[in-house]
Amino acid sequence: MIKVGIFGYGNLGKGVECAVSKNKDMELVAVFTRRDPSSVKINTASAKVYHEDALKDMTGDIDVLILCGGSATDLPEQTPKYASLYNVVDSFDTHARIPEHFANVDNAAKAAGKTCVISCGWDPGMFSLNRLYANCVLPDGKDYTFWGKGVSQGHSDAVRRIDGVKDCRQYTCPVEEAMDAVRSGKNPELTTREKHTRECFVVAEEGADLARIENEIKTMPNYFSDYDTTVHFITEEEMKANHSGLPHGGSVIRTGVTGVNDENTHVIEYKLTLDSNPEFTGSVIAAYARAVARLNKEGQTGCKTVFDIAPAYLSDLSGDELRAHLL
Amino acid sequence: MIKVGIFGYGNLGKGVECAVSKNKDMELVAVFTRRDPSSVKINTASAKVYHEDALKDMTGDIDVLILCGGSATDLPEQTPKYASLYNVVDSFDTHARIPEHFANVDNAAKAAGKTCVISCGWDPGMFSLNRLYANCVLPDGKDYTFWGKGVSQGHSDAVRRIDGVKDCRQYTCPVEEAMDAVRSGKNPELTTREKHTRECFVVAEEGADLARIENEIKTMPNYFSDYDTTVHFITEEEMKANHSGLPHGGSVIRTGVTGVNDENTHVIEYKLTLDSNPEFTGSVIAAYARAVARLNKEGQTGCKTVFDIAPAYLSDLSGDELRAHLL
Repeated sequence: MIKVGIFGYGNLGKGVECAVSKNKDMELVAVFTRRDPSSVKINTASAKVYHEDALKDMTGDIDVLILCGGSATDLPEQTPKYASLYNVVDSFDTHARIPEHFANVDNAAKAAGKTCVISCGWDPGMFSLNRLYANCVLPDGKDYTFWGKGVSQGHSDAVRRIDGVKDCRQYTCPVEEAMDAVRSGKNPELTTREKHTRECFVVAEEGADLARIENEIKTMPNYFSDYDTTVHFITEEEMKANHSGLPHGGSVIRTGVTGVNDENTHVIEYKLTLDSNPEFTGSVIAAYARAVARLNKEGQTGCKTVFDIAPAYLSDLSGDELRAHLL
Repeated sequence: MIKVGIFGYGNLGKGVECAVSKNKDMELVAVFTRRDPSSVKINTASAKVYHEDALKDMTGDIDVLILCGGSATDLPEQTPKYASLYNVVDSFDTHARIPEHFANVDNAAKAAGKTCVISCGWDPGMFSLNRLYANCVLPDGKDYTFWGKGVSQGHSDAVRRIDGVKDCRQYTCPVEEAMDAVRSGKNPELTTREKHTRECFVVAEEGADLARIENEIKTMPNYFSDYDTTVHFITEEEMKANHSGLPHGGSVIRTGVTGVNDENTHVIEYKLTLDSNPEFTGSVIAAYARAVARLNKEGQTGCKTVFDIAPAYLSDLSGDELRAHLL
């Protein structure tokens, strides 16, 4: 059994917990939190909740520690720190800072003889893998990534900070016509506005100026001003009844040409339709936790990404079984 | 430069040649044939055509030899034989015999210090990879593979053997309603007949009994009797004008559930739409030829499949570049 620890018990931590329960060779041993442990109720009866401070003393009890904090401030500090004590998986998703994060984690993990995977999930993660495979198979081609329809937590939070807004759920929606043009092999040049629209469901405070709120949303730089945005004002009851999930997904598409005269076009599409973004992310992380445990046993230490790990390491089946049943 | 040799210059050999020309770090050195070399005209001016016999003397000239023969009789003999002289890639696709083929190639390659990849292409190949990744990420789920719309060479050949048939092109077509039911997460149980239909375009000999031909096609065991088949009789001119390509493709779909009460459904779909089956297969093979050359330099010998190779090996970019641009 691979003994798993989870640090951070928000949406992602709960998603990882669900995923671990689906893998028969894995066992959740402990959840670590910065909160008062007695205030955290988990779903796994056999696991215990500890304060973060206990992490320094439990290195013998856990094969892989999964870090479920945020990319802005938690992971840049936590992943290198705990890579010196544990094999670690994180879902660091600030694309621009990945090289720096990788170097920090790699140094810590190598010095301690530990194995780590950073930026694990679906984007970065499964989408990255599909970008890489498709680029290698079709070197003469063009990449497209569409996201949604799905809830963007960052955009929902941004709207919540507007004066008079009690709650918001923001959906990122791919433009179907743009996706169809890409799938047809036309290689369109698409602006930000042509690829995605944004849809906001907003609960306003009583008496708030709805026209002002709608205008503030639509003109917000970086988040909304480059998109066509629709704003719906709804009640708290409607929010709870219709927008309590965290669905997401999207498509990675690469089109490319082959042939003596580039006469043949090929389209590769990888598409995810997810009822729960954090549970699917947790499921990807669990598979890579298995790989991390196995790589470490083989002495392959340091920081890895999904690019560096042979797919067979993700499976609990043997090479013989994989070749017989999945090849 | 990775120096590539191709053995067998049919549709697949030509597809590999096109693919090599798209990879700037690869160079086609030679094409080997069992025919009279002077009868084989290739598209790469800088490469030469040799008889198969020359293969025993050219081990110093070629980094990776790509075997483009058939799976029925060519590859079971050729791949183990040449794995003792070269790093080799093949596209062996007789699923039931893969374990035996793997063992034969592995023994030969290990004894000679060579690195080989077998069963490389899109199915087996990219479809297998996607089955594996999706199974690892969603352990509680169900797999579906749909093929087409595309030309099946085996079914086209079977029809051509019927008395009175001059030519045939057979298309395998996925049933859209079945795919939509799968994509909706309904986990349908589908019979062979419910998943695919078959469509035949037939050129008959003058005066042939068309009703008899149609009946022989539709009732042919293994090939057609389990499917709903449509037969169109066309002229040779129509065949040439409308059915000269070798398009193919399909979808690997896995649906699975997560959550405390399995309340969330996820759908992973990998879809290929290919103008040319052999050129796309050749493109996958070229990427794995790069991996084989690199693995052999690192001393990782023996037989591999797509499951055993970390994706980064397929790319000519460095780890730093991949992390910065594709993760």
